[in-house]
Amino acid sequence: MAKAPAVLILNGPNLNLLGTREPATYGHVSLADIEKACRAQAATLGLTVEFRQSNSEGTLVDWIQESAGKYQGILINPAAYSHTSVAILDALSALELPVVEVHLSNIHKREAFRHHSYVSRVAWGVICGFGADSYRLGLTALATLLVEEQET
Amino acid sequence: MAKAPAVLILNGPNLNLLGTREPATYGHVSLADIEKACRAQAATLGLTVEFRQSNSEGTLVDWIQESAGKYQGILINPAAYSHTSVAILDALSALELPVVEVHLSNIHKREAFRHHSYVSRVAWGVICGFGADSYRLGLTALATLLVEEQET
Amino acid sequence: MAKAPAVLILNGPNLNLLGTREPATYGHVSLADIEKACRAQAATLGLTVEFRQSNSEGTLVDWIQESAGKYQGILINPAAYSHTSVAILDALSALELPVVEVHLSNIHKREAFRHHSYVSRVAWGVICGFGADSYRLGLTALATLLVEEQET
Amino acid sequence: MAKAPAVLILNGPNLNLLGTREPATYGHVSLADIEKACRAQAATLGLTVEFRQSNSEGTLVDWIQESAGKYQGILINPAAYSHTSVAILDALSALELPVVEVHLSNIHKREAFRHHSYVSRVAWGVICGFGADSYRLGLTALATLLVEEQET
Amino acid sequence: MAKAPAVLILNGPNLNLLGTREPATYGHVSLADIEKACRAQAATLGLTVEFRQSNSEGTLVDWIQESAGKYQGILINPAAYSHTSVAILDALSALELPVVEVHLSNIHKREAFRHHSYVSRVAWGVICGFGADSYRLGLTALATLLVEEQET
Amino acid sequence: MAKAPAVLILNGPNLNLLGTREPATYGHVSLADIEKACRAQAATLGLTVEFRQSNSEGTLVDWIQESAGKYQGILINPAAYSHTSVAILDALSALELPVVEVHLSNIHKREAFRHHSYVSRVAWGVICGFGADSYRLGLTALATLLVEEQET
Amino acid sequence: MAKAPAVLILNGPNLNLLGTREPATYGHVSLADIEKACRAQAATLGLTVEFRQSNSEGTLVDWIQESAGKYQGILINPAAYSHTSVAILDALSALELPVVEVHLSNIHKREAFRHHSYVSRVAWGVICGFGADSYRLGLTALATLLVEEQET
Amino acid sequence: MAKAPAVLILNGPNLNLLGTREPATYGHVSLADIEKACRAQAATLGLTVEFRQSNSEGTLVDWIQESAGKYQGILINPAAYSHTSVAILDALSALELPVVEVHLSNIHKREAFRHHSYVSRVAWGVICGFGADSYRLGLTALATLLVEEQET
Amino acid sequence: MAKAPAVLILNGPNLNLLGTREPATYGHVSLADIEKACRAQAATLGLTVEFRQSNSEGTLVDWIQESAGKYQGILINPAAYSHTSVAILDALSALELPVVEVHLSNIHKREAFRHHSYVSRVAWGVICGFGADSYRLGLTALATLLVEEQET
Amino acid sequence: MAKAPAVLILNGPNLNLLGTREPATYGHVSLADIEKACRAQAATLGLTVEFRQSNSEGTLVDWIQESAGKYQGILINPAAYSHTSVAILDALSALELPVVEVHLSNIHKREAFRHHSYVSRVAWGVICGFGADSYRLGLTALATLLVEEQET
Amino acid sequence: MAKAPAVLILNGPNLNLLGTREPATYGHVSLADIEKACRAQAATLGLTVEFRQSNSEGTLVDWIQESAGKYQGILINPAAYSHTSVAILDALSALELPVVEVHLSNIHKREAFRHHSYVSRVAWGVICGFGADSYRLGLTALATLLVEEQET
Amino acid sequence: MAKAPAVLILNGPNLNLLGTREPATYGHVSLADIEKACRAQAATLGLTVEFRQSNSEGTLVDWIQESAGKYQGILINPAAYSHTSVAILDALSALELPVVEVHLSNIHKREAFRHHSYVSRVAWGVICGFGADSYRLGLTALATLLVEEQET
Repeated sequence: MAKAPAVLILNGPNLNLLGTREPATYGHVSLADIEKACRAQAATLGLTVEFRQSNSEGTLVDWIQESAGKYQGILINPAAYSHTSVAILDALSALELPVVEVHLSNIHKREAFRHHSYVSRVAWGVICGFGADSYRLGLTALATLLVEEQET
Repeated sequence: MAKAPAVLILNGPNLNLLGTREPATYGHVSLADIEKACRAQAATLGLTVEFRQSNSEGTLVDWIQESAGKYQGILINPAAYSHTSVAILDALSALELPVVEVHLSNIHKREAFRHHSYVSRVAWGVICGFGADSYRLGLTALATLLVEEQET
Repeated sequence: MAKAPAVLILNGPNLNLLGTREPATYGHVSLADIEKACRAQAATLGLTVEFRQSNSEGTLVDWIQESAGKYQGILINPAAYSHTSVAILDALSALELPVVEVHLSNIHKREAFRHHSYVSRVAWGVICGFGADSYRLGLTALATLLVEEQET
Repeated sequence: MAKAPAVLILNGPNLNLLGTREPATYGHVSLADIEKACRAQAATLGLTVEFRQSNSEGTLVDWIQESAGKYQGILINPAAYSHTSVAILDALSALELPVVEVHLSNIHKREAFRHHSYVSRVAWGVICGFGADSYRLGLTALATLLVEEQET
Repeated sequence: MAKAPAVLILNGPNLNLLGTREPATYGHVSLADIEKACRAQAATLGLTVEFRQSNSEGTLVDWIQESAGKYQGILINPAAYSHTSVAILDALSALELPVVEVHLSNIHKREAFRHHSYVSRVAWGVICGFGADSYRLGLTALATLLVEEQET
Repeated sequence: MAKAPAVLILNGPNLNLLGTREPATYGHVSLADIEKACRAQAATLGLTVEFRQSNSEGTLVDWIQESAGKYQGILINPAAYSHTSVAILDALSALELPVVEVHLSNIHKREAFRHHSYVSRVAWGVICGFGADSYRLGLTALATLLVEEQET
Repeated sequence: MAKAPAVLILNGPNLNLLGTREPATYGHVSLADIEKACRAQAATLGLTVEFRQSNSEGTLVDWIQESAGKYQGILINPAAYSHTSVAILDALSALELPVVEVHLSNIHKREAFRHHSYVSRVAWGVICGFGADSYRLGLTALATLLVEEQET
Repeated sequence: MAKAPAVLILNGPNLNLLGTREPATYGHVSLADIEKACRAQAATLGLTVEFRQSNSEGTLVDWIQESAGKYQGILINPAAYSHTSVAILDALSALELPVVEVHLSNIHKREAFRHHSYVSRVAWGVICGFGADSYRLGLTALATLLVEEQET
Repeated sequence: MAKAPAVLILNGPNLNLLGTREPATYGHVSLADIEKACRAQAATLGLTVEFRQSNSEGTLVDWIQESAGKYQGILINPAAYSHTSVAILDALSALELPVVEVHLSNIHKREAFRHHSYVSRVAWGVICGFGADSYRLGLTALATLLVEEQET
Repeated sequence: MAKAPAVLILNGPNLNLLGTREPATYGHVSLADIEKACRAQAATLGLTVEFRQSNSEGTLVDWIQESAGKYQGILINPAAYSHTSVAILDALSALELPVVEVHLSNIHKREAFRHHSYVSRVAWGVICGFGADSYRLGLTALATLLVEEQET
Repeated sequence: MAKAPAVLILNGPNLNLLGTREPATYGHVSLADIEKACRAQAATLGLTVEFRQSNSEGTLVDWIQESAGKYQGILINPAAYSHTSVAILDALSALELPVVEVHLSNIHKREAFRHHSYVSRVAWGVICGFGADSYRLGLTALATLLVEEQET
Repeated sequence: MAKAPAVLILNGPNLNLLGTREPATYGHVSLADIEKACRAQAATLGLTVEFRQSNSEGTLVDWIQESAGKYQGILINPAAYSHTSVAILDALSALELPVVEVHLSNIHKREAFRHHSYVSRVAWGVICGFGADSYRLGLTALATLLVEEQET
């Protein structure tokens, strides 16, 4: 029987604050709640997940690099680094894994500098605006992509 | 028992060609296949769906206007009109229903004029890049939003 | 005695919703109310009016084309098509009738993409921001222009 | 019986030249003619008017400031200062009176630097392109606004 | 013997007015004259032609879609929709027929917003500035392309 | 004993309205309050101050020119003229005195056209966002600069 | 009998390389082939042609200047100088002959800096994208223009 | 004998400081020196001159307006107002006198915001970079224009 | 008695080099000198301070996050990260403490890319150009804000 | 006695056509007339002149390079190359001679691409708009500069 | 005998992946290969080298700061941080050592956002496009610069 | 034994002036010195070189075209034509030889219009900022490329 595909879930800067501040923008759900929801959803989808957060661009690049050979896909909420990090874009490009980009808020309704994401250039798909559900939907999408890949 | 929420699924110009042309960009799935998948997904989610396509901006505006009082939410793939139609934006703004925007392809990987969508200014969330799955994910997101609304 | 000049009053997309939604932006007056006010004002000014609304750019172009020989002037609220329709601009340019452009809201106070109107390039004058009164003022202005034309 | 509302009519730089030069752009009507027309229209509308012109940005700012408590509304043709004066914008913003902006010519048909007006950011409405009639229409609009305000 | 290739000639908004208005820009030739000239030229080239005009973007998209399997090439004068319609671009892209774009006037001599055409991104070639001759030249070019295709 | 350095405090257009209008943006402090606070702070710092306000760009330029030989430094809140006046920039450049620029509000949080100040090109330093305290801080900074200059 | 009109056909930089390099962009036809095709077409059209190529902007300007009085029209493929040469634009403007601009490739499908041509500002018409046929079509167009001119 | 033509020489803000400050940019010549040089040059050219300076935009507009009927030409160094004053442009446009624009420094070598002058849109010619000689050259040019006008 | 408010003073990249290099831009004062001056000023103002510097964007984000509950205000010199870090902006936004932004040099006199600071969008006020005094002034401003907050 | 300073007068592309074409823009004066006027003016000023014209950017660069040691100043009308030639700018920069730039027409009244001149970056002064008189004024200015240089 | 100059070779984010991924862009050479080639080249040139890589902007800034007094020059491939890091620019600016910037690929052939490098503002020279040879050439250039410095 | 590869070294406008003028920007080395250095370096690398300079864009295009079949590579310093010549770009594109672009100065430290080079779009690599050494490094790079090509 095929082993459960493993997915690395990466969270960018300030997402560790979720649920504690600015609920008007990000809602009341904490990052721990999101992790729990992701694990539940992953179980349903037959995936295993590794869930991490860092405020450091370099650490996120390190983790992406190290994921080669250990994970079958990446779900990433790059947060502020979406808009400024070519380094994360390059790390994801170098990786040959499917990448799904998620955002809690609809970034197209916010300041103009948040409308552009470097990560979108390399992501298979992008989901934004559904709060914690963006993650659950992203995992579902990734699971489907991984199944299709296996079948090809 | 609460009545099943009804969702209007709107498809913009040229989506009726799906599956017959340009499979490199849009895949082999036809619009009828997508409708079938949406109906199946809707059944699972306890939603009823109305599924329509038009090449005409004015017709899409008409349909959006007529949906007031008949549907509890809209899922829209505005296709080419995403980038050019203020009229559709205004019609959706005037409506007080939750709107989810979906795209088959990741529009951020295509020509620069496709990176901007007027509809994103009014959508609760946006999902792009997962082919027909963008619709299924969108319906799932919409179902959750409708449940949350009922509970509020 | 000279026949009463006839004026075509054209209303662009979503104006049929007036009074039913988004009162914060457009007020509580319905399009039927505006039509009634226009007819009253026209009677005072010695004008006859034809009052139409369409959500379709093509239909608006058709109506503008058909007005040649039937009307002596056009009052138009192009709504969303102000900002996107070169076709309406071209139809109005081809017509040799005076054109007055009106808007319910002050478009210069709204989103940047609403600050520009293609129609303003061909209109004799533009009136915006006075709600339904924009129409009444526009008819008054048009009546004066028509009188001046007759006298020339 | 309510006292007749008083309106300050302000005219920006070079409007004192009206009727004497550049008739192709501004027509043959002089500023004195416009004042007379305004007074006649004001009488009809039950308004009293104060009519002034200055070539100096600072003087216009002074007059706007001094109008607090003395007038119930301002009708302004800022002429060249429309496009360059943040000081006039700030003076009008500080005032809590309704402001109507008028222009003799349709500024959207002229050089690109005339398409933008700082004053439009604070005006209730804008009327341009009808020559001296722009003032008459503006007074009519202002009278209606003042009546609505009194009734509220 | 090979059947005569069929060409769909599409005319965008306001071209039905040709010859009746704005002769300074478009000349005195009517659309019926152009159709006649096209039919004569087609006869010479061994082509059959279908000649249509619409003011509606959606109708033009419909006609382009329906041309698959019925025509061997498209000659299009998109008029105002050249500059604003992504939907027509997408319809033409989906079609695997050669497309020739024509304009009566030299669009590069007109307002800046007319210098860009979405259709040019998908056309094999573009001809502008020769009045009705632009069509005849376009048909000639299309005939040559179709012959070369048959020979390949 | 060294004579107390004299500082000219200049206030641009509409600052005479402070405390009477728009308290949400500018607070409840009047310009007279600010002058009093400046005089108190100046006394502490061993400075004498001259405090002036004008709505006229030309008058501000005159005052700057006349300050040569009479003052040892200038503290200026150019208000609206920050964003539009090259003449004030040139007057300050011609002067060889230290200039400190202050603003009541944080101009970087307001409309985009307020983010740029011509005066900042010539000021030694800029302080904004602290209400009347911006002046007190500016005087303190200026006093330090003047002492350092004397010591050099 | 009227003398055959003479046309100067000018070819800009690198066109002498045609057929020997980059066939993917320019096809396999050499400049000599194009000259031959032009001469054949000219014979059909009753024109005489002079055919020249230069890599030097100054030489092209010289040739354009010298054509006054010797030719009745110019057909020019300015190649790279389309995008950079104001001198060629000025030379063609000074000449009172009809100018037709042709390009082998559809310049609107190539790099952004090739979308703009200075020469298009002065050309009667522009034809691009049909390879060597662009020249033949251009000569045909020019012949028609010359006939119309003679008849006027 | 024809009366000596009269020329109004206008100097914009901060030019009264000439010779006393910033000699690196403007040289050691004072405005009085320039006036003397202008008077000497005018005598040679058979002109009478009126020489004025103001720091106020409004005063400059007033003086331009008042010059109608009193002067045959204007020589203006608008200084900082070159770059910001539409009011001065409008005043000069309304006047039907020849205008020559001069600048002491070569404005094209300075900051980017000094490269554009509104006044240049209405000036017959522009002279910059020759210090006080810009005035002398400007007067010479104006004298020639006035002679040519008289002869026409 | 109220406890002394605690302030976190954050220094961005390369500020640890102060006093050792580029004195022309940053002066001869070292970061240790600035810390000492801040501690002295804080003592005067009744504040306690924590003083830190990091070259790492992620570390600065960490420190800002950790300051919640430990400090009553933040004084930050974001140095190079002012211009590039959305992550620091987001961290400061999530925090509900008053933020004062300081810069040693007047950033508006330096390269264009230094004129914009993301941090200014969230700072209460900004002070730049006074060298080490920018910190002292910033602490003074912060102390006043904290007192006002306590009193509210 | 000092030898008469020698000046090289350079004329860019298409100036050899002067007087024969486009009199509306350039007047009826031929380049030979201008040369004659320059020689007469030079005689008055005690200068000797060499007068040349070329349509070739490279030739103009050659002539500028060769002028070192042979001429004391350059008067150049770069015509179309003003706007496009960095090579001429570099040649003039390398030369240590005073350069005066002249234009027949006021380039600021023409198309936007003519408002910028690379040559202005290196010219001591610029004179435009006075037709052939621009040359005479330029020679006068150059003579003064040369005298001042000798005296320094 | 002079001690061998020491060079710090810095490698930015993702360069540790070299040779393992995306060979189409970066070739098959690993970072270890490049280090070996650099050491060999350094030996030839009489240099000692320290070779480091980091994915963290802050770490790169730290290393640059620490190199003062330990190295005589820096060779840096900033990779993704070329385009986004003002902090690295500032660190290199503060250092008074010669800096050579290298890139494996020709960044001018890639996406537009890679055409600009902050580091180029401070580098003595830039070498890109030669794969691992860019490093060898860079070391050679640096060796020459160091020799020239010693000789000065 | 393989014949020594031949390299064409092309020098653009004004490089013939090297060493005689503007040493602050370009150093004291003459073009003859550079040629000598290139010949010495070429001898070391087993290359033969042809060394040419022209001020004419057309001549440079001619030489590039003629190099086909005669040289195995091109080293080019396009100087001013880097920034303006599409013709040189096209000539180099048509050629199937490796191209190395060199500049004496670091063009990214100079005026903004020098930051972009058309030639970089087609060059294998670019080297700038090392004075005459840029050429030596470029030849070395080219030799390596030629060896690698022979081995492939």
